[in-house]
Amino acid sequence: MIDTIRSEINSCSRDILKGYRHFILETPLWVLPGRALGVDCAQVWLKLEHLQTGGSFKTRGALNRLLKNTVPASGVVIASGGNAGIASALAARERGVACEVFLPEVSSQAKRERLRAIGAKVTVQGAAYAEAYAACVAHQQATGALQNHAYDQLEVVAGAGTIAAEIEVQQGSLPDSLLVSVGGGGLIAGMAAHCHGKSRVIALEPHLAPTLHAARQAGQPVDVAVSGLAADSLGAKRIGDICWQVQGQAVHDALLVDDAAIRAAQLWLWQHLKLAVEPAAALGLAALQTGVYRPAADERVGLVLCGANMDPASLST
Amino acid sequence: MIDTIRSEINSCSRDILKGYRHFILETPLWVLPGRALGVDCAQVWLKLEHLQTGGSFKTRGALNRLLKNTVPASGVVIASGGNAGIASALAARERGVACEVFLPEVSSQAKRERLRAIGAKVTVQGAAYAEAYAACVAHQQATGALQNHAYDQLEVVAGAGTIAAEIEVQQGSLPDSLLVSVGGGGLIAGMAAHCHGKSRVIALEPHLAPTLHAARQAGQPVDVAVSGLAADSLGAKRIGDICWQVQGQAVHDALLVDDAAIRAAQLWLWQHLKLAVEPAAALGLAALQTGVYRPAADERVGLVLCGANMDPASLST
Repeated sequence: MIDTIRSEINSCSRDILKGYRHFILETPLWVLPGRALGVDCAQVWLKLEHLQTGGSFKTRGALNRLLKNTVPASGVVIASGGNAGIASALAARERGVACEVFLPEVSSQAKRERLRAIGAKVTVQGAAYAEAYAACVAHQQATGALQNHAYDQLEVVAGAGTIAAEIEVQQGSLPDSLLVSVGGGGLIAGMAAHCHGKSRVIALEPHLAPTLHAARQAGQPVDVAVSGLAADSLGAKRIGDICWQVQGQAVHDALLVDDAAIRAAQLWLWQHLKLAVEPAAALGLAALQTGVYRPAADERVGLVLCGANMDPASLST
Repeated sequence: MIDTIRSEINSCSRDILKGYRHFILETPLWVLPGRALGVDCAQVWLKLEHLQTGGSFKTRGALNRLLKNTVPASGVVIASGGNAGIASALAARERGVACEVFLPEVSSQAKRERLRAIGAKVTVQGAAYAEAYAACVAHQQATGALQNHAYDQLEVVAGAGTIAAEIEVQQGSLPDSLLVSVGGGGLIAGMAAHCHGKSRVIALEPHLAPTLHAARQAGQPVDVAVSGLAADSLGAKRIGDICWQVQGQAVHDALLVDDAAIRAAQLWLWQHLKLAVEPAAALGLAALQTGVYRPAADERVGLVLCGANMDPASLST
């Protein structure tokens, strides 16, 4: 599986670089001395992927999915009110195909409006996400539309993995370790596939949404209850199959961070570095500031700031 | 004057690089195709200087001022409730010297508290900034403290000019043109001194705070009335003497942008690129998006995002 993903990352990097650099942006890699973040290590590399089109890394995989498949007239469908939904809607607009997003009744009006503003058709069905997902699958089967998954598809995982390839090109090497936030595991599966044998990849999850940690403890993917500050983007109930196949070999450790530390790190990033990120993007700094992950003194640690889709007023204090 | 500033920029770059890279950060230069910002030109280079320590470029000059002068026991004094005050307080803390900031009664409680939290002594005196400034000068004369100016001092101008030198190192060249926001003119004086003969530097000001534009029309610095969205950071009443001496040779043009365009560009930067900046940092994109500045199709245009000291709630819509 690692080799398959790597091959897909390579072709995705080529495709994206060829014609879509106005859409899939080469986000900045900011290399700072550890001391600038109050961390006792040589360097912290911040991959500013929250500046990506659509405000998260998901747009890479969503476009890759559309580039690698024939999209029928019925377009692309996805059940997601979060970053994956935004990413699919934007990628569909970029490619000039239709996109339909299935949301449950609990989804906010703001999310529905944002998706409509991008040009997606929004269908509200079911009380919770599981029901919206079922409606999305039924619709796909009836229409033959292309279904996008938020994390558990090869093209989506590889799209995320292009971030690691990009870091390596930008800096000429990978950092010694990379701290990656995990929800369904799409991002870390791509990063770990690329980094395997070259850099240690460490998974970070909120205590309140521990899909990978729980799976590693159980020896297989299991459903977990999810809640808390970062549930909006890391709130998958079960680790994806692709991630599960990759992680045993390629993910060095899976660590948990509590919500108070995530919130403190999110505010620190705004107050000290003027980086406005969503809670999911703050897990790496939270792990460093709390000592959940302790780098060596000469270590170069990479963090992926994965998203910024939140109300900026949440950073006011 | 240009040669004097250039020489000071060179020594400042060396000093900062030598021992302060944890404090004066090498901010990212983000090179994007013009199309990514909806601009019909080859490239837009965004210098993300709003991510600098203290949330603005001012910290470069404030530290340089302290490095190039003997600071007496009475410390450093400044009259500024804005970015220059924050920068001086942070630079003084970094160097372990005292800092006293003079503010008028109209200054907000939030600003006073932020300066105190950094460790500065805050003295509130006078109804308006002119009176706080007079009190600051009187205090300096009585105590022999080192006075920092917000823009009209060689070390401060040169500190700002290190941004241009840094861009040139980061990208291997300067862009064809650089759009720079102007208040008192410290930033543009430093940038223009470095870029003279190598890149066109264009001044941008709000219609409601046109210090350089008015001076160029009058043939000499004149007082102007200031108001509007960006007055907090671009609200100097008169262009500084150093800027005035440099601009005739080294500033290609001085253009005006209206507040509605500034606000639209500020919101665009957040909504499309998740860059949270203060209004003063949005003038460059405003000029491009409104056609106030029209680049050639093959032009590489540089923008300095100069600050992010605003309430993030102002980006909520």
